Amino acid sequence: MSTSEIGLIGLGTMGAMLAMNIAEKGFAISVFNRTTSKTDDFMALAAREPGDLASRLTPTKALEELVASIAKPRAIILMVPAGAAVDEQIAALRPLLDADDLIIDAGNANFHDTNRRAAEADAAGVPYLGIGVSGGEEGARHGPSIMGGGKKACWDRVSHILEAISAKYEGQPCATWMGEGGAGHFVKTVHNGIEYADMQLIAEGYGLLRDGLGMGAAECGKVFEAWNEGTLQSYLVEISGKVSQAIDPATGKPVLDIILDRAGQKGTGRWTVIESQQVGAPVPVIEAAVAARNMSAAVDTRKAGQDLFGAAPQALPEGAVTIEDLEAALIAGKIMCYAQGFALLDTAGATYGWSLPMPAIAEVWREGCIIRSSMLNDMASALREDPARNLMFAPYFADFMKKTHGALRKVVGASVAHGIPVPAMSAALGYFDTMRTARGTANMVQAQRDFFGAHSFERLDAEGAHHGPWGSHA
Amino acid sequence: MSTSEIGLIGLGTMGAMLAMNIAEKGFAISVFNRTTSKTDDFMALAAREPGDLASRLTPTKALEELVASIAKPRAIILMVPAGAAVDEQIAALRPLLDADDLIIDAGNANFHDTNRRAAEADAAGVPYLGIGVSGGEEGARHGPSIMGGGKKACWDRVSHILEAISAKYEGQPCATWMGEGGAGHFVKTVHNGIEYADMQLIAEGYGLLRDGLGMGAAECGKVFEAWNEGTLQSYLVEISGKVSQAIDPATGKPVLDIILDRAGQKGTGRWTVIESQQVGAPVPVIEAAVAARNMSAAVDTRKAGQDLFGAAPQALPEGAVTIEDLEAALIAGKIMCYAQGFALLDTAGATYGWSLPMPAIAEVWREGCIIRSSMLNDMASALREDPARNLMFAPYFADFMKKTHGALRKVVGASVAHGIPVPAMSAALGYFDTMRTARGTANMVQAQRDFFGAHSFERLDAEGAHHGPWGSHA
Repeated sequence: MSTSEIGLIGLGTMGAMLAMNIAEKGFAISVFNRTTSKTDDFMALAAREPGDLASRLTPTKALEELVASIAKPRAIILMVPAGAAVDEQIAALRPLLDADDLIIDAGNANFHDTNRRAAEADAAGVPYLGIGVSGGEEGARHGPSIMGGGKKACWDRVSHILEAISAKYEGQPCATWMGEGGAGHFVKTVHNGIEYADMQLIAEGYGLLRDGLGMGAAECGKVFEAWNEGTLQSYLVEISGKVSQAIDPATGKPVLDIILDRAGQKGTGRWTVIESQQVGAPVPVIEAAVAARNMSAAVDTRKAGQDLFGAAPQALPEGAVTIEDLEAALIAGKIMCYAQGFALLDTAGATYGWSLPMPAIAEVWREGCIIRSSMLNDMASALREDPARNLMFAPYFADFMKKTHGALRKVVGASVAHGIPVPAMSAALGYFDTMRTARGTANMVQAQRDFFGAHSFERLDAEGAHHGPWGSHA
Repeated sequence: MSTSEIGLIGLGTMGAMLAMNIAEKGFAISVFNRTTSKTDDFMALAAREPGDLASRLTPTKALEELVASIAKPRAIILMVPAGAAVDEQIAALRPLLDADDLIIDAGNANFHDTNRRAAEADAAGVPYLGIGVSGGEEGARHGPSIMGGGKKACWDRVSHILEAISAKYEGQPCATWMGEGGAGHFVKTVHNGIEYADMQLIAEGYGLLRDGLGMGAAECGKVFEAWNEGTLQSYLVEISGKVSQAIDPATGKPVLDIILDRAGQKGTGRWTVIESQQVGAPVPVIEAAVAARNMSAAVDTRKAGQDLFGAAPQALPEGAVTIEDLEAALIAGKIMCYAQGFALLDTAGATYGWSLPMPAIAEVWREGCIIRSSMLNDMASALREDPARNLMFAPYFADFMKKTHGALRKVVGASVAHGIPVPAMSAALGYFDTMRTARGTANMVQAQRDFFGAHSFERLDAEGAHHGPWGSHA
């Protein structure tokens, strides 16, 4: 007993995969699950894994047994559902621990909860970490991207394990300490918001191929495959190629064609939008993506809309938009999406008192996580040059925008004319054009606000707050 | 003493105007302000008002004096800054009151705070109301739109006063009880979100007139004046005509041309977006409007963007877009904006357990508030026919959409081609086209989610949750 280097509570899919990953990398680990049959199932599964990883797994059937089996000072990972379950687990576990034992929440916590739990741990003088883990089941098993938050000294106690189990980009571990409190879970939240936007941009590209150019699913898949060889190389484009070409065994039809177009969500996209509102950092491409999922849920309304107004998407005229135009438009859209996401991270870091390591965030996303892509390496380089600069101003990405915004304009214009909804691409173009308009139209908004509410406005030719000549009666 | 029918605390602009309004309508009212010199100033101001309203005002210099001067059971309006000041004022006031004395928060509270305060009052067995008051200074003085929340019995105690001071639409008071707890402040929040969107749509129309058609400010003003005679008739279009034609006394230039294009916000637009996210009811036009204000704040970034990429807005080719196209596009955009806002109210009502009186909401907005317009009367009619139906399906508005979406498409297309940012119009068109697309592209999103996270998908041809043939290894 008391020989495991670390413990893990919660043997759901993610927890089970993470425990195997830890054992495989050579660390002795004790595991516990409230429903103890799950622990038995897990051990049986682990026994069938190649190598000797099962020999480093210690199953336990009570929290006390788990605690007793871990070397002091202990470190215990929680992989339980986000929310109340985490607080309950901490409440049950903490009394069994020594004051220097470390609890690590590796679930999908809202970063406000992690801030609160970190503050509670601080007040009690006990160590606590909240880490965001991305990469799904496969990532957890073979190498996720890990975004850590909490006291740096706590991170340093377990970083050798977290780095060992993480994905590697050219040998560099995708596991990084982001800052105090909920910083790690915050970075993970923005990761997921970007993931929503990346997926929506791809779905819009798919819609243009399918409805605009009349391609079948397999044909679309070949296009994604080709794009995955170029600037758009990424896990999401890669799997889009795969799912587009997959055949449903039951019907022999392409799988894409039998899937209902109603998208689910688990809340992190929504959290990103809410946080962007709280700190006033606009993320319109992510907003469009979350709205698109919500609109997709209204299946019956959309059917009624089509009956009443006619189907929106029409085939594009021959030659109006080429595959190359679409690829360029997606590149421009993706750059705008990430520019917004990193700008949100920068603003939120300042707002919440974190010194977020901007280049390291791009680096940690290069492998293991869902949004991994070759472009993230170029973003890391750009952020190393200047971590606070909006990505659209980094020469590498500015050049891309100069080359591609014409195509984005062409694609959005054709979509608008022919009823193909492209809300994320439209939002990307709107952001780009707004951000290169020195003289916008908010002077009208300010004039209105001063007229009806005496809110005052700034002048172009003088400092201070001013009012229009309409008087307070207005 | 003990003869005033009501009391009011907080003689800032809104509180002072509301107190004069109450006195003018024949109600004896006692007033109090923490800084007592403000009370003296207020009385001096009131003495200069026509008629005998000042004779019904009782100034008081201590909370005890205020309380003693009001007939029992008392009703006291708080008009103090939203947030902690309200809680502090309640804490100071409540011990001086009897158990059946009513506190009414008429400030711009976040409805979550009002829910909490109403629950606290409930637990203490004391009455409480939270009312949203819209119309700015002028509305408060001569007739605001009032959205009430709390116990219906509390509302009924003061409704004769609130109805008397409210704006009237063809004799009908614009003061309505919306539901329990924070319902009134919630409706006010969505009002403000719609206000943001209405203003942004107008600002985009102004941008097209100015940058697309090359019109001067006064010329733009004439266009707004003309639009105010038609379907777009509204307070905001009316004042847009006025501010566009106003001349700056200092420079002799149009006021619009000397106002910095950086828009402020006080948070209620943001709250609307956050609530729409919480309940999953998409409001993309409002989101675009809030994002546009945030982007307008980045003045230096926009200048740098113009330097690097060239100015976005270009003049439109002769005849590409007519004034009539623009008017039709704004009508379509406005209908989509309100369709989203009312859908949010409907969803939030169900989520928070309110039976929001949908037609009455449209009715109470017809006069007094910032978004008042002739179209709101038609919306009230449509919601009386079917309060849960999305406005785009009401025959009256569906006909408008059929007639105008082509113009919206034309305007957005030309703007996209020529770099004129129209994010709110784009979002309106995207919503319309998405809501008439029976077969969207979320099947791609669901395929990706199942591939990387085994989230499952629904099938078009069978019930239940299904997985693709990619296996759990994916």
